[in-house]
Amino acid sequence: MFSEADFIHMQRALTLAARGMYTTTPNPRVGCVLVKDGVPIGEGYTQPAGQDHAEVQALKDARRRGHDPQGATAYVTLEPCSHFGRTPPCVHALIDARVKRVIAAMEDPNPQVSGRGLSRLRDAGIDVRCDLLSNEARELNIGFVSRMTRGRPWVRMKVAASLDGRTALPSGESQWITGAAARADGHAWRARACAILTGIGTVRDDDPQLTVREVDTPRQPLRVLIDSRLDVPLTARLLDGTPPLVFCGRIDERNAAHADALAARGVEIVPLANAQGKVDLPAMLKALAERGINELHVEAGHRLNGSLLREGCVDELLVYLAPSLLGAGSAGMFDLPAPATLDARTALVFHTVERVGDDVRILARLLPPPTAR
Amino acid sequence: MFSEADFIHMQRALTLAARGMYTTTPNPRVGCVLVKDGVPIGEGYTQPAGQDHAEVQALKDARRRGHDPQGATAYVTLEPCSHFGRTPPCVHALIDARVKRVIAAMEDPNPQVSGRGLSRLRDAGIDVRCDLLSNEARELNIGFVSRMTRGRPWVRMKVAASLDGRTALPSGESQWITGAAARADGHAWRARACAILTGIGTVRDDDPQLTVREVDTPRQPLRVLIDSRLDVPLTARLLDGTPPLVFCGRIDERNAAHADALAARGVEIVPLANAQGKVDLPAMLKALAERGINELHVEAGHRLNGSLLREGCVDELLVYLAPSLLGAGSAGMFDLPAPATLDARTALVFHTVERVGDDVRILARLLPPPTAR
Repeated sequence: MFSEADFIHMQRALTLAARGMYTTTPNPRVGCVLVKDGVPIGEGYTQPAGQDHAEVQALKDARRRGHDPQGATAYVTLEPCSHFGRTPPCVHALIDARVKRVIAAMEDPNPQVSGRGLSRLRDAGIDVRCDLLSNEARELNIGFVSRMTRGRPWVRMKVAASLDGRTALPSGESQWITGAAARADGHAWRARACAILTGIGTVRDDDPQLTVREVDTPRQPLRVLIDSRLDVPLTARLLDGTPPLVFCGRIDERNAAHADALAARGVEIVPLANAQGKVDLPAMLKALAERGINELHVEAGHRLNGSLLREGCVDELLVYLAPSLLGAGSAGMFDLPAPATLDARTALVFHTVERVGDDVRILARLLPPPTAR
Repeated sequence: MFSEADFIHMQRALTLAARGMYTTTPNPRVGCVLVKDGVPIGEGYTQPAGQDHAEVQALKDARRRGHDPQGATAYVTLEPCSHFGRTPPCVHALIDARVKRVIAAMEDPNPQVSGRGLSRLRDAGIDVRCDLLSNEARELNIGFVSRMTRGRPWVRMKVAASLDGRTALPSGESQWITGAAARADGHAWRARACAILTGIGTVRDDDPQLTVREVDTPRQPLRVLIDSRLDVPLTARLLDGTPPLVFCGRIDERNAAHADALAARGVEIVPLANAQGKVDLPAMLKALAERGINELHVEAGHRLNGSLLREGCVDELLVYLAPSLLGAGSAGMFDLPAPATLDARTALVFHTVERVGDDVRILARLLPPPTAR
């Protein structure tokens, strides 16, 4: 159905799409290659929100290089959009340019619009095909797909631990368990996220900035703090720079003054209590999705990690294992209760296993519990 | 210094040597290739103890195939022996066969005899070279090298754990955390060991047979039990088949009758108490080395694992990590005290990282503590 050339061009389009890894949010990362008479004549990838999508970039690129896109094949990593958003729909641009063929890696994940862009192209007499390297395309936009199909971000929880699964000494010391290469790698994962989440415990223990520093990025992710009682001190480094978003339980007479002080610093506070007065974590995910957060990167302590896992709010674990042992008295990865039987354990699948410097990085995905499968 | 052909032939000799992986104990695994006029004319590897060494096998093979080894080059993965053991020295066989050149991957690790075999060959006018693929050769006989140079076996501790470093539920349930492929892989590591060691806690919890079953082997490793108070029940499956070796603390009026009952079953009991009345673990390693144990495979619980680590009796961790979480209430890998600071943590180096079925296998080596480096 697809030729070897089709694979090569789509692979190139995926490579281009990945260039938008740190910048396209809340839009998906999309790449486009225009090929005419077997020769690539234009390339593009999604620019920061409000600017050109990949298809328009590729058309401009072709013209800039003196090529007419008429009769070309467009390889796009995602079904072209058919609606007016901050930019005009890409299907118009492709139709106007009189391309002959469009090959899309995957349909738009939003079930409400899925297939509409492809239909418009077909209606215009364009030869349209779909589902080429769709797994790769889906992985690239795993967060966008999650937000569109589930109304919540893709939640990736980062943990750095010793080989025996320990994340901090009894003294609280945890910097650094992993090596420099793993820490830089961790910042690349931060950079691709739309938001980075932590808890008040980590603010107390480590006072993190929660910014991307070890890799170049033109954009800093939104910082999000879970702080049920609104205890975050005004001196926390998290408050430096662009103010973070803070989810708390309730605002009442105990913390109203502190809430005002935080608001005066530009901090947006969202009260979102569950029945126990703590932050309602599933509701928080929904709220973040509504703000356009595709990928949520979690760097928290074992308590918040455990809560997120228990409440089904984690999709993926990004675990760095260091070549050391910290012993049974040190903190574990997650405050999770032990299951009654092995059958009831939290099931994962190891997605990738890589060595990063002296450490090992395991990307493990949560499997739905047996009853939900 | 060495030609590409030399590398190829030595690599072949290493492959042959590995055929003795499960059988040569207490002898090292050695391979030999005879090459004449650029063509391999004979191959051999060490047979079970008391039978032919690799060099003699290769000479026999060449003659069986109608070749005269005179003028050939012998590639051997270990310096040929120069002493009469259960077999005559291999240097005699090579000299008698009038080979022209001998290339050895590494010298004999025993500092008392190292280089003596090569000298004998040189004295006989043979062109001798050494240190070709020596790292690979050393890895292949890591236990033999350990016994010869340190007077103790190479101790490899196997652990199967969830990604969060847990080895058993609070109920004691641990079968099975890892998958079938990892368990079969674990049996291959058992098979290559000279002895398999466990503790009385594991006998109580799991009642293991501690035999090699998942891979074919003509030889079962010696089974060794650490049982300070000599509590092992006469019904333990460990007592089935060839009786195990049991190390205990002291034999006194409390356990003398039980010791007699075990002895009647053919069990050899070695009292070896330290100041606390527990088994003296470093002394146990020495005793095992004196019995010709090169590689000791440990499959024990977190308590004995912790004791062995604390007493510096572990060289390597063979860790299988399963794609699951067992939670903070489950048993950890090792009962080790947390260090006061991260600088004082137990340092490892990840030797290999492999996926085995759905699991990950990490072979991690203990580094000497900073003061000893």
